[in-house]
Amino acid sequence: MDKNKIKKLLEEVKKGNKSIKEALTVLENLPFIDLDFAKIDTHRELRMGAPEAIYCMSKTTTQIIQIIEKMKNDSNILATRVPEKSMKEIEKTYPEAKIYPESNLVFIGKFPNKTIGKLMIITAGTSDIPVARECEITAKSMGIKTETIFDVGISGIHRLLSIRNKLKEADIAVVIAGMEGALPSVVAGLIDTPIIAVPTSIGYGASFKGIAPLLTMLNSCAPGISVVNIDNGYSAGFFAAAVIKKLLKRETE
Amino acid sequence: MDKNKIKKLLEEVKKGNKSIKEALTVLENLPFIDLDFAKIDTHRELRMGAPEAIYCMSKTTTQIIQIIEKMKNDSNILATRVPEKSMKEIEKTYPEAKIYPESNLVFIGKFPNKTIGKLMIITAGTSDIPVARECEITAKSMGIKTETIFDVGISGIHRLLSIRNKLKEADIAVVIAGMEGALPSVVAGLIDTPIIAVPTSIGYGASFKGIAPLLTMLNSCAPGISVVNIDNGYSAGFFAAAVIKKLLKRETE
Amino acid sequence: MDKNKIKKLLEEVKKGNKSIKEALTVLENLPFIDLDFAKIDTHRELRMGAPEAIYCMSKTTTQIIQIIEKMKNDSNILATRVPEKSMKEIEKTYPEAKIYPESNLVFIGKFPNKTIGKLMIITAGTSDIPVARECEITAKSMGIKTETIFDVGISGIHRLLSIRNKLKEADIAVVIAGMEGALPSVVAGLIDTPIIAVPTSIGYGASFKGIAPLLTMLNSCAPGISVVNIDNGYSAGFFAAAVIKKLLKRETE
Amino acid sequence: MDKNKIKKLLEEVKKGNKSIKEALTVLENLPFIDLDFAKIDTHRELRMGAPEAIYCMSKTTTQIIQIIEKMKNDSNILATRVPEKSMKEIEKTYPEAKIYPESNLVFIGKFPNKTIGKLMIITAGTSDIPVARECEITAKSMGIKTETIFDVGISGIHRLLSIRNKLKEADIAVVIAGMEGALPSVVAGLIDTPIIAVPTSIGYGASFKGIAPLLTMLNSCAPGISVVNIDNGYSAGFFAAAVIKKLLKRETE
Amino acid sequence: MDKNKIKKLLEEVKKGNKSIKEALTVLENLPFIDLDFAKIDTHRELRMGAPEAIYCMSKTTTQIIQIIEKMKNDSNILATRVPEKSMKEIEKTYPEAKIYPESNLVFIGKFPNKTIGKLMIITAGTSDIPVARECEITAKSMGIKTETIFDVGISGIHRLLSIRNKLKEADIAVVIAGMEGALPSVVAGLIDTPIIAVPTSIGYGASFKGIAPLLTMLNSCAPGISVVNIDNGYSAGFFAAAVIKKLLKRETE
Amino acid sequence: MDKNKIKKLLEEVKKGNKSIKEALTVLENLPFIDLDFAKIDTHRELRMGAPEAIYCMSKTTTQIIQIIEKMKNDSNILATRVPEKSMKEIEKTYPEAKIYPESNLVFIGKFPNKTIGKLMIITAGTSDIPVARECEITAKSMGIKTETIFDVGISGIHRLLSIRNKLKEADIAVVIAGMEGALPSVVAGLIDTPIIAVPTSIGYGASFKGIAPLLTMLNSCAPGISVVNIDNGYSAGFFAAAVIKKLLKRETE
Amino acid sequence: MDKNKIKKLLEEVKKGNKSIKEALTVLENLPFIDLDFAKIDTHRELRMGAPEAIYCMSKTTTQIIQIIEKMKNDSNILATRVPEKSMKEIEKTYPEAKIYPESNLVFIGKFPNKTIGKLMIITAGTSDIPVARECEITAKSMGIKTETIFDVGISGIHRLLSIRNKLKEADIAVVIAGMEGALPSVVAGLIDTPIIAVPTSIGYGASFKGIAPLLTMLNSCAPGISVVNIDNGYSAGFFAAAVIKKLLKRETE
Amino acid sequence: MDKNKIKKLLEEVKKGNKSIKEALTVLENLPFIDLDFAKIDTHRELRMGAPEAIYCMSKTTTQIIQIIEKMKNDSNILATRVPEKSMKEIEKTYPEAKIYPESNLVFIGKFPNKTIGKLMIITAGTSDIPVARECEITAKSMGIKTETIFDVGISGIHRLLSIRNKLKEADIAVVIAGMEGALPSVVAGLIDTPIIAVPTSIGYGASFKGIAPLLTMLNSCAPGISVVNIDNGYSAGFFAAAVIKKLLKRETE
Repeated sequence: MDKNKIKKLLEEVKKGNKSIKEALTVLENLPFIDLDFAKIDTHRELRMGAPEAIYCMSKTTTQIIQIIEKMKNDSNILATRVPEKSMKEIEKTYPEAKIYPESNLVFIGKFPNKTIGKLMIITAGTSDIPVARECEITAKSMGIKTETIFDVGISGIHRLLSIRNKLKEADIAVVIAGMEGALPSVVAGLIDTPIIAVPTSIGYGASFKGIAPLLTMLNSCAPGISVVNIDNGYSAGFFAAAVIKKLLKRETE
Repeated sequence: MDKNKIKKLLEEVKKGNKSIKEALTVLENLPFIDLDFAKIDTHRELRMGAPEAIYCMSKTTTQIIQIIEKMKNDSNILATRVPEKSMKEIEKTYPEAKIYPESNLVFIGKFPNKTIGKLMIITAGTSDIPVARECEITAKSMGIKTETIFDVGISGIHRLLSIRNKLKEADIAVVIAGMEGALPSVVAGLIDTPIIAVPTSIGYGASFKGIAPLLTMLNSCAPGISVVNIDNGYSAGFFAAAVIKKLLKRETE
Repeated sequence: MDKNKIKKLLEEVKKGNKSIKEALTVLENLPFIDLDFAKIDTHRELRMGAPEAIYCMSKTTTQIIQIIEKMKNDSNILATRVPEKSMKEIEKTYPEAKIYPESNLVFIGKFPNKTIGKLMIITAGTSDIPVARECEITAKSMGIKTETIFDVGISGIHRLLSIRNKLKEADIAVVIAGMEGALPSVVAGLIDTPIIAVPTSIGYGASFKGIAPLLTMLNSCAPGISVVNIDNGYSAGFFAAAVIKKLLKRETE
Repeated sequence: MDKNKIKKLLEEVKKGNKSIKEALTVLENLPFIDLDFAKIDTHRELRMGAPEAIYCMSKTTTQIIQIIEKMKNDSNILATRVPEKSMKEIEKTYPEAKIYPESNLVFIGKFPNKTIGKLMIITAGTSDIPVARECEITAKSMGIKTETIFDVGISGIHRLLSIRNKLKEADIAVVIAGMEGALPSVVAGLIDTPIIAVPTSIGYGASFKGIAPLLTMLNSCAPGISVVNIDNGYSAGFFAAAVIKKLLKRETE
Repeated sequence: MDKNKIKKLLEEVKKGNKSIKEALTVLENLPFIDLDFAKIDTHRELRMGAPEAIYCMSKTTTQIIQIIEKMKNDSNILATRVPEKSMKEIEKTYPEAKIYPESNLVFIGKFPNKTIGKLMIITAGTSDIPVARECEITAKSMGIKTETIFDVGISGIHRLLSIRNKLKEADIAVVIAGMEGALPSVVAGLIDTPIIAVPTSIGYGASFKGIAPLLTMLNSCAPGISVVNIDNGYSAGFFAAAVIKKLLKRETE
Repeated sequence: MDKNKIKKLLEEVKKGNKSIKEALTVLENLPFIDLDFAKIDTHRELRMGAPEAIYCMSKTTTQIIQIIEKMKNDSNILATRVPEKSMKEIEKTYPEAKIYPESNLVFIGKFPNKTIGKLMIITAGTSDIPVARECEITAKSMGIKTETIFDVGISGIHRLLSIRNKLKEADIAVVIAGMEGALPSVVAGLIDTPIIAVPTSIGYGASFKGIAPLLTMLNSCAPGISVVNIDNGYSAGFFAAAVIKKLLKRETE
Repeated sequence: MDKNKIKKLLEEVKKGNKSIKEALTVLENLPFIDLDFAKIDTHRELRMGAPEAIYCMSKTTTQIIQIIEKMKNDSNILATRVPEKSMKEIEKTYPEAKIYPESNLVFIGKFPNKTIGKLMIITAGTSDIPVARECEITAKSMGIKTETIFDVGISGIHRLLSIRNKLKEADIAVVIAGMEGALPSVVAGLIDTPIIAVPTSIGYGASFKGIAPLLTMLNSCAPGISVVNIDNGYSAGFFAAAVIKKLLKRETE
Repeated sequence: MDKNKIKKLLEEVKKGNKSIKEALTVLENLPFIDLDFAKIDTHRELRMGAPEAIYCMSKTTTQIIQIIEKMKNDSNILATRVPEKSMKEIEKTYPEAKIYPESNLVFIGKFPNKTIGKLMIITAGTSDIPVARECEITAKSMGIKTETIFDVGISGIHRLLSIRNKLKEADIAVVIAGMEGALPSVVAGLIDTPIIAVPTSIGYGASFKGIAPLLTMLNSCAPGISVVNIDNGYSAGFFAAAVIKKLLKRETE
């Protein structure tokens, strides 16, 4: 992105030669950065309210670093599914990066100081925590207040009942479960907080790497549940944040 | 539900002998209505903000009518997946019922006069309209303002671009598509409105009664999408309404 | 089965010429009845403790009636998955038959007066009742005491909590659920009664005629659950009865 | 779990200040141990008759050890699906642990001296033994008498006939098979002992990691069979033990 | 097919002007009959030892009759999967046709008087008989001696043992089973007769219209089994006949 | 579409007031026709070279007729997957319509007089003809010269060899097959004509309504094959026509 | 197996004290060898005409060696799916063993000098050779004459036509193919030799580790094909050998 | 291939003793090169217009080198799916080879100087580039002009719109996408260039190694799309090149 161009534009705005609305239109039409192997969507932050995350699976370390280089002055960096090898390289290159090794996640930048809303993220088991973390960091990077509670699956339902009130107070709850994936259904029967269900690939035998909990969640007899892809904490966090931002901002406009 | 019991309770509240909080607790613990073959969840409206819908598939006409009878004085009735035969019987028994034959849907009661939020419901094709209708009526019955736009699938993308601004203004968009189900992904790339995607069983060959669009939606490369079950307009409408109610109410509290 | 042969054998036993053990051996080796198109397993009652049920799907009415004719003097008749057309013919031919039309089930004979054990059969929804009935009649025909509770699914979990104690007192519980099939997992987290889970084909979209609840049940994170085939109330009832008979008889020997 | 709290409670019981029933209620409501990443279900032994097993797949070695530390004074430890690396660490930390390397299983504690019932565990092939061992140890840890017989698959049916009587004398049989998984059906046709069938992922080509035997077992034409998840010896052992304990205890009460 | 051409050819052979080998070559290259919508493979009998069967599914009655007309003077007619409507028309048009309504099968012509080999066809249940009949008639039309035994499934294994010797004497056995499809594996463990296994779509729930027995048969732990498509009695009969003809003819050459 | 607007535009072009390029741009941006339940893509013919086909599955007869009404003055009508009931209504309303009942296809209008290219359409069996017809009519309506050859499947490969030269001369061949779907692979090994393979749902047992031939075609070991959806003659015809038009027009420009 | 016992038996036969028939009966009922973890089926050679193969997948090296030790004096050893590690150990322990590393196959013993029949084994590609080898060695160990031809897939059909006569002369042909698996269908259309089709897991994308060719082979439009499991050369070889032995021996009796 | 034979043939042609047509016929019937483990299809170039590619998966390095040796004097070499180990060996043996390590692709020879047509290859993401490269090199080796554009997926649709005109000018576009695979549908709605869609195995969770985008592409609501196997850049490139060559050559003949 040509930063001089933007600077000039902003100067015009400041001087009153351009209205904010005009400037916004210009910005929305700015070209993406073309790295040949990748076109970085530089105005997504403007359009969508969040920077493009770098989905790193099947990208080489060189490609990832090049993309970070181009983006890091303009926005926070969220890199998901980072291969272990690339993670180490990133750690060396950007000592300031926050690394979440079990989630294969990297965040470079600053979480917004001011947060809005309240997102509760709960998991059925200990093994689901890496997915929860991906969800949490994504939402935090978008300025949402988050809270996490782990290992409250239904095989000991009293653990779940003990957090019922906390769940009720949240704007949205992300409920993460592997194996048979029944937790979102049970939670949805208890409270009126909308639930985003995330199936995980935790389990064995006929759980088929997450298909079993995915089907459970899609077929939930309790309404008020929507579902994202297996292990996709990023998508759950993004959707939850998008909902909160859209609706709370609307109120405050 | 023993109505006398509730009356007495309310009298106590009125007289100030019971606080509202106490009364609420009592109501939350009232037993469900037991019809032997069905236990009607009479306090769901209190707990969840919406009455229990009657899922009619595999229920006999007699069972459906009996459940309606028990519920209809206390709440609006939303009956989904009503078999054709039962639909006719309901039409005869409740001439005031609103019948949506192509959606196998019945609504008995009154839509709330005061609506909040703004839910946009769009379909990729004409054939997806029955699912959209189920979504629309569900949300309306929960007091949400809705708007529908049909047949804006991606094979002629200019049709979609013409409604881009409308979509931007909505709090949430429900995007319904069969066949390859790519519409939600495309919409999500255009705007920042959160999207609830509904795959439909429209299509043939390798669409496998909705599996193809379901997978498309779950795997969307655009974030900000969550998914409900195939043809499940009810669940999409309920989830959208729940989100709007939760977040807008929170603001106004 | 040649009844004279058995009579003579029993006379020999009575006179003390044959020990009970010898007679038993003879009986265990008696040939089946050969109807050419079917070989009726006449000594299953002896060997397995229950007569062979007639699985009627894809059998002609004539074949079913012929099998009933050959069996009905020696044992109770349990005919499952009876096609509607055959059901009517059976009703005419055997006015004494007990007909359960929604379960496609026929019972001809007498339920044992003396019952043992306690089998609790619960369903998640009203639509699951026909499967529950098949389970109940099967177990009753084998001399087991049964109780049924319907429509206690997890979308209103207070309905379930109200029957917790009843479930605790049962020897075994058969838990029947369609859609997402989470009920057995939840029940298993509450009590120590062993659970036989039966998935049903009730549901739509991605429930895939029962595959979703089947996977849920197989992958349950709560132990103490075993599973039978989709909609197979007969198998659940038979297995539960077999367990109760084996273990209680053992104690009383 | 706060042991002092329990001690005091028991003292009250002893003195007669608290009835047993009251004390039991208190105990059932004691909070779980919260390790943040895991909530240990400390009163499951009370509620379910068996301690919570530690499902170790996707847990870090540190997490596993921390959970063992918290649990090991109050109950036996059964850790399943232990990753090889963690297994070695456990072996070093707890020299008294019983290690079953091929089953990825660890048991720390003492098997009950007094056993009840009789559980027969048989496998179709040599390769199924690790699953059988997981089943055996689970049941033994719950106080059940077990016996194992390996490699009696149906391709040489005389091997099976030679153990027919042993099977008849068991209360319950766990029958474990991979490949085509026909063994449980054949056994069920021979005896009246109820059978818990366990499909294993042994096989190749179209066995699809255990789906083929799973389907075989679910569709068995012989009644008296129920099924658990692929390779899930733990669940089979737990269910069998639960059945025996429930029914035999009931008799002796 | 131009019959005059063949007559002349045969006269040449008779007179010694053409060797048998030459004539055979000519015949092998005769063109097929072209009906536009179908090309009848008129020299398959020569090349393959059996006339082309008419696979009638999705053919109109008119098309079927036209094909029969063209073929019936030169060879026997075997029409499989005949839709009910067409069956009636064929019955009227060809009163000499042998009709097997439950197998949707028609045979027009004469079974060879001289038969070779010995093919045993057995079914697990009564419901599998239509598939067995298709197999039987196919093999008979190719000059093979056949015998059928029905309903000897493994849930009462003594029924099977009673026919063990008959099976041993057969050249090949076709074993037909639905549900869990374990019968071929059991038979293969008892005798050295090669087995062609046919899965049928009989069953319910997770038998998935024959997939369960298909997988069982493919994964059989007993060798000496090969498999054909679900419900494909024709293919089993053809393959068995082809094997017998190839190998016995070879010996007698 | 406002025809006057276009007329005026064309007059401007004629007078030389507007360049062709300008006019084209205008036309490309003309709005679609909005019927509320459907948005007709009126400028697809301009953009894509072919009018929008009406996909009629799940549309009501009224909806179909309304769409035809709006479109029929501006372009030819191709209506696919027309339900039988609607077909009759269309036949009555538009006596000039060409009806292909077995393909559920309707064409209203005139095939172009001038044709280009050469498309060969062949089927493996007689039962595949309806799909071939849909392909043929689609291509003809787009001005392509077509030829059809039916029933040349590989079970009698000499039938196929007899048409080898015809296939060689075609620009593109559409090869349609059900059952195992091997015909495209075999054809591709014989000639250099590019092949569009269409799997059909003809077959039974493990053909799974076309999945088997679909997989066969996707996995073809012979290159030069691309695949469309099961039974999708329309898509094959459209793609073939699009290729021919694009490449031949390019040459003649 | 107690060899003394057999020796004595044979002496009795020699002396004329026991008829051959009596001795045979004794031998057929001899107990298997019990290694606890494995029951070796020592009389399979007698019953089935071939020794039990050792299926080594998931067996430890120690277990494999122990089984070889017990069997090797009485029969040839065929060990399939031998893990690489065990293969090396076997090679060291039994220098006389024939090792086929790419097929993970070991043969210890002598191939019969006298062979019968003629089995042709052909592959579609070079990559299918390891499966062909497993088939070849199995058949050879059972005394069958074999011939192999590799890489004659249908993408260059002239390669196949060049071996047509060889195929015609074989008693049975095993046809092995991965990818789309069309070779058996094509061969079956050319000759009257019965075909055993073996799908292999060679291929990528939608070949799904052999499912695509498996389905192709099951759905073949050419009759005279039967199918074994994916990559199962052993089963194909065994079945082919069993057929040849059964039918040719019958002739010579 | 016997080169002397061809030389002589060509001399005959030169001298006018043989017509070109005769010579061509001879060449078309030349035998393939038989390496025992592989039959190299030496006249495919003649028949199909492109040399046989060496599919290297599951071939040993020795086999690959041997095939290259035999082929490299007569034609260019394209080796696909080369295992890493073999790639290194090839690099050492043929220093002139062009190596594309991320595509596991090797090209030995010279790309044709004269190119025809215009093939545009675009990818949805950076991770899809290796598949695009395989496609590009295949088409280039067949004399096609190619252009590539990467990372223009639909989550930022403005990136796609910026290349709309380039796509319009291409003869054919290969569109490559993983995850939900919606890119081809969107492109097809924008332009009239025929599209070959390639699903890739990039993605996670419910993308099932490419099944999700495969289904999306097959079910596209936009016509003008045909599909090749998952990750099969080779097949897409070959098909595109074959189409261009067939149609452009036809024009110029």
